[in-house]
Amino acid sequence: MKATYMYGAGDVRVATADDPVIKEPTDAIVRIVRACVCGSDLHRYHSMPATPDGRSMGHEAIAVVEETGAGVHGVKPGDFAVVPFLWQDNTCVFCREGLQSSCLHGGGYGGAEVPVLQAEYARIPQADGSLVPVPGIDPATAGEGTLSSLLALSDVYLTGYHAAHMGQVSPGATVAVIGDGAVGLSAVLASRQLGAERIILLGHHDVRTDLGVEWGATDVVSERGDQAVAKVLELTGGEGTPIVLEAVGHMPAYEQAYSIVRPGGIISRVGVPQYEKAPVGYGSLFGKNARLAGGPAPVRAYLEDAIPQVLDGQINPGRVFDLALPLDKAPEAYRAMDSREALKVALIP
Amino acid sequence: MKATYMYGAGDVRVATADDPVIKEPTDAIVRIVRACVCGSDLHRYHSMPATPDGRSMGHEAIAVVEETGAGVHGVKPGDFAVVPFLWQDNTCVFCREGLQSSCLHGGGYGGAEVPVLQAEYARIPQADGSLVPVPGIDPATAGEGTLSSLLALSDVYLTGYHAAHMGQVSPGATVAVIGDGAVGLSAVLASRQLGAERIILLGHHDVRTDLGVEWGATDVVSERGDQAVAKVLELTGGEGTPIVLEAVGHMPAYEQAYSIVRPGGIISRVGVPQYEKAPVGYGSLFGKNARLAGGPAPVRAYLEDAIPQVLDGQINPGRVFDLALPLDKAPEAYRAMDSREALKVALIP
Repeated sequence: MKATYMYGAGDVRVATADDPVIKEPTDAIVRIVRACVCGSDLHRYHSMPATPDGRSMGHEAIAVVEETGAGVHGVKPGDFAVVPFLWQDNTCVFCREGLQSSCLHGGGYGGAEVPVLQAEYARIPQADGSLVPVPGIDPATAGEGTLSSLLALSDVYLTGYHAAHMGQVSPGATVAVIGDGAVGLSAVLASRQLGAERIILLGHHDVRTDLGVEWGATDVVSERGDQAVAKVLELTGGEGTPIVLEAVGHMPAYEQAYSIVRPGGIISRVGVPQYEKAPVGYGSLFGKNARLAGGPAPVRAYLEDAIPQVLDGQINPGRVFDLALPLDKAPEAYRAMDSREALKVALIP
Repeated sequence: MKATYMYGAGDVRVATADDPVIKEPTDAIVRIVRACVCGSDLHRYHSMPATPDGRSMGHEAIAVVEETGAGVHGVKPGDFAVVPFLWQDNTCVFCREGLQSSCLHGGGYGGAEVPVLQAEYARIPQADGSLVPVPGIDPATAGEGTLSSLLALSDVYLTGYHAAHMGQVSPGATVAVIGDGAVGLSAVLASRQLGAERIILLGHHDVRTDLGVEWGATDVVSERGDQAVAKVLELTGGEGTPIVLEAVGHMPAYEQAYSIVRPGGIISRVGVPQYEKAPVGYGSLFGKNARLAGGPAPVRAYLEDAIPQVLDGQINPGRVFDLALPLDKAPEAYRAMDSREALKVALIP
């Protein structure tokens, strides 16, 4: 089969790989219907050291089940399913609490043992927990909009939703969203779903912030750095916003976050931090009793509510996909996202 | 009058100072009945650069009102009151939300403009918001235990309470408290008040952890560093504790906190951080969706509930005071706390 590998910063290639096979009775093999490139893949695209054997890529997909191991009972060959970006048994103590991202028997796609999803086929560990069937959808006949929105539930929209959920967005809330990438825009849509009344979107790209406004942003701050901070403070009577959703992962975004959060407020991060240490002392978080939350989204916890919202047209998170390319063109997909020509690219095997 | 000054690390002296006078119509002048030395004073005691003019010290007291400015209506001369460690108008937008530590017109004792409380007299800004009268108590006849417990409400107990409150301690909770200083022990007492079922206290000093056990600690971990982390994980089935209250402020305590917090759990800090940057990335907080909360306690928000709890004997937070010295002996008070001969020292002018 064909699969996507990264060999170092800026070096993505589609290569031939062995077809995946069942290794554990809890595995399934799926045929990928749509995969896509994630903002977190771009972090590697910028900084990955050269790796002669390459690293297999991709953790978002919708797929059709081809084969199941003897221990799989929740899905069967022919089922169409959303593939959450982390795999989990969905039965352990953390899964039962809705924190599937900390599943005791779960993990992330990638590495030598787990083939990944920017490919024609993939092995899905813990298939009963890691595939969420969508009955009634035939990918051969479903509309492209429906497929895109279901694909967005694999990671990007529900990562934005996780930001809003961990930020405790509730009806009437005032929220700032840092970042107009696909996750930031998803955080806007999710905040509006959760009833936020005022949503201040920090972003510089009109075509993106326009979608943000369509999805519920009431204010767009296109200034950068300290000027953006000043603008948010001006918009909030000098107080800052009680909820800040940080959807970037770079230090300047975090610095903006603690600068605009209102005393007693909460910063919820879902951009994978490209730093380990950051300011949290008296001058940043502590002095004003600001709180810090967020992490990898337990997509599985939110999927069962989100799928019907997509199917009945209540939300259309797939609109973040503004380009679709055949899997062969994965290198072009990375390039287009990196150069910001595309917001998010779907890959069609 | 006599007042306490620090001239550099390890150098505390009692000197003669001008008697404080009303400067603003919202001021009051109080006679200090009891003051005390705070763990945060010890941070300065370890590291303050030499300062020829000295820095006036102290931010905790119970006091009797001597004189009030023309704009003060909530207290009158002769009133006995608890003095919260921050001053505030108690009417601004943040005060009304219970975040008096971010009062728009408030501040902290210390510096050239605001005399401080390890002294015979003090000027209290925003007296209506910054003095909480305790009717029916005459300090000349009240029991020493009652006075000590009211003094503890000025900062130490309600700082421990703030840790528990921001850590969302609720009935049945499992909590770890890092630090067996007076704030840590207060956090144990407050956690028990809020219904915690299991309280794991990390501390090395038997006489202190014994008081912690009396106040509700169910487990004492006397190991240090990584061994303490291993012990807490062992006590919690490998998962860690859902709530960690960090009552120290040094980096090793913070490192313990993120190492023992359960995925999805919360770290609440009230030890004033002696660092600005700290790990918050994938390997510490983000990867396990751990949350970070805490800051300076809005003591004023909690005082009105806590005073009756002291007066009816429900709590006895003054037991953290194991030494009382005349104000003249303030240098000895600092030395005794720094050497851990005393847990917390009251100063009697």
